Order: sequence, then structure tokens, then C-alpha cells
Amino acid sequence: MIEPLYLDDLRVGDRFTTGEYALDAEAIKAFAAVYDPQPFHLDEVAAADSLFGGLAASGWQTAAITMRLMVTSGMKIAGGQIGAGCELQWPRPTRPGDVLRVESEVLELRPSATRADRGIVVLRSETRNQHGDLLMVLTAKVMMQRRTT
Amino acid sequence: MIEPLYLDDLRVGDRFTTGEYALDAEAIKAFAAVYDPQPFHLDEVAAADSLFGGLAASGWQTAAITMRLMVTSGMKIAGGQIGAGCELQWPRPTRPGDVLRVESEVLELRPSATRADRGIVVLRSETRNQHGDLLMVLTAKVMMQRRTT
Repeated sequence: MIEPLYLDDLRVGDRFTTGEYALDAEAIKAFAAVYDPQPFHLDEVAAADSLFGGLAASGWQTAAITMRLMVTSGMKIAGGQIGAGCELQWPRPTRPGDVLRVESEVLELRPSATRADRGIVVLRSETRNQHGDLLMVLTAKVMMQRRTT
Repeated sequence: MIEPLYLDDLRVGDRFTTGEYALDAEAIKAFAAVYDPQPFHLDEVAAADSLFGGLAASGWQTAAITMRLMVTSGMKIAGGQIGAGCELQWPRPTRPGDVLRVESEVLELRPSATRADRGIVVLRSETRNQHGDLLMVLTAKVMMQRRTT
């Protein structure tokens, strides 16, 4: 059992690494068919002629997998991981055969000025594949509880 | 047939509205089981005791549905809708029974300084439910082609 974390347990610069998640062409197409039905996410031939130059996962699939990894094997936050907002960048596309892993760093801790029991942690999370290629950068404001005893 | 849009076709302030997408408790739980397995997205009883006070969709599901709506019934972009990066806010949770719709506005047009055939449009997209509640705000930098003839 890992004890869940409160805002007071974190320091700027703390790092957390997740487990891994592999995706193949079928998984890329299945997600895209529901949530991002564009030719370069659905079909190898169409993708070869696109800006991507080959089948690429929807950026929203990379984001969703990143969330899965953080929730199931990243830092365990008391009360759960609830985001207030974030910034996303996708420097490179996620490809069939990629194995994703996330490393998060605590950028900032912001105890609430008005509520002694809560605050915000700013987390920068990098999603990379097995070659170390940077696929996504997520900078998120995540709500956290404070230790009140 | 709607003609696909190039950067040159847009003006700041142009607006685009999508169709609708309904989601129920089963859809919320199914997405969460794969991508955001936290109690408040998976179980009504656990959710009642959480910060959400009841079952709530993962913010990544709201984002993915927003993308689906924009791709299938929003502005049609020549070459497809490819984001370079974005900001997301979730002012309110998406709930079972919500029917989502997206309205996008062109905030900014940035022709590339070095490549005459492309540029970036900054789009602000609001995702609302059938009651008009604002669920998500997406401000995205989307790549666009220019008319070169």
C-alpha cells in the first residue's frame, strides 16, 4: 500500500514515474473511429499522404493514455486526481508500436489563500516512447487536499 | 459537400457550431475504466462522497467528445484538423444525461513568417450541455494550409 499524498507532502522538484502502456495500429484506429475520425488516424494509406507521413494516434488518445498511466501508477493523490485546467503540447506524433511512459515533476505548490484544507499543485508531465522521443507535455493544475490535523 | 477551409478563408470572430453528442452513465464508466479509472468516474456511490458529489465524466472524455464533434460537424479544415498545442479548462463536470455541443470562435490568424503555404489559427471552443452550462474551454493552436494559387 502506498500512502496517498497531500499537498504538504510535496516539494518543488519532486518527480514521479509511471509504468508503461503499449499501443498498436488497431488501438489507434479504434480510438480514432470514436473520438477523432480523420484519415491519418484511421488508415495507413491515407496517413502516408498526410502531414504525419504515416499512421499517427490522435493527440487525445496520447492524453487519455497519459492520464491512465498517472492514475494507475503515478503519484497517488489523496481524494483522487482532479484537474482544474492544463496546457498540452504534442511535439511528435504517437505511432503504432510505441510504448508510453510518463514522468512528472512538481513545478509549483499553491496553498489556497482562503481554504486551509486545500491547494493546487502544478505538475509538468512528459510522455515519452521507448526510444525516449517526447510525445506530449502536459502542464496541469491539480487540486490537492492539505493535512488538517 | 462543404468546401474545406484554408487559413485565407477565415476572419477573426468567425464562429462555427457543431452537432450534438449525448452521454449516459454507462458511457462515462466505460471511458473511465480504460483511461481514467478513479472512483468518482466509475461508481455512483463513491462519486457521491467525492468532490464531484455524484458521477462525473473524466475531463479527457469531455475533451475527446469535443474533438469528435469538431471533426465530424464543426469547421472543415483542408488537410484535416491537427493541433500543435492547447489550453484546457473544465469549469464544471460533465454528468450522465448531458448532451454536448461545441461552439468555436476564431481568435487569431498567424500566417507563417517563413512558409508561405501554412499558418496557425487560434480557436477558442466552448463545450456546453443542453442547459447551456459551460463544461470545457479549449483554446487550441491548429495548423492550417494557405491557398497558394
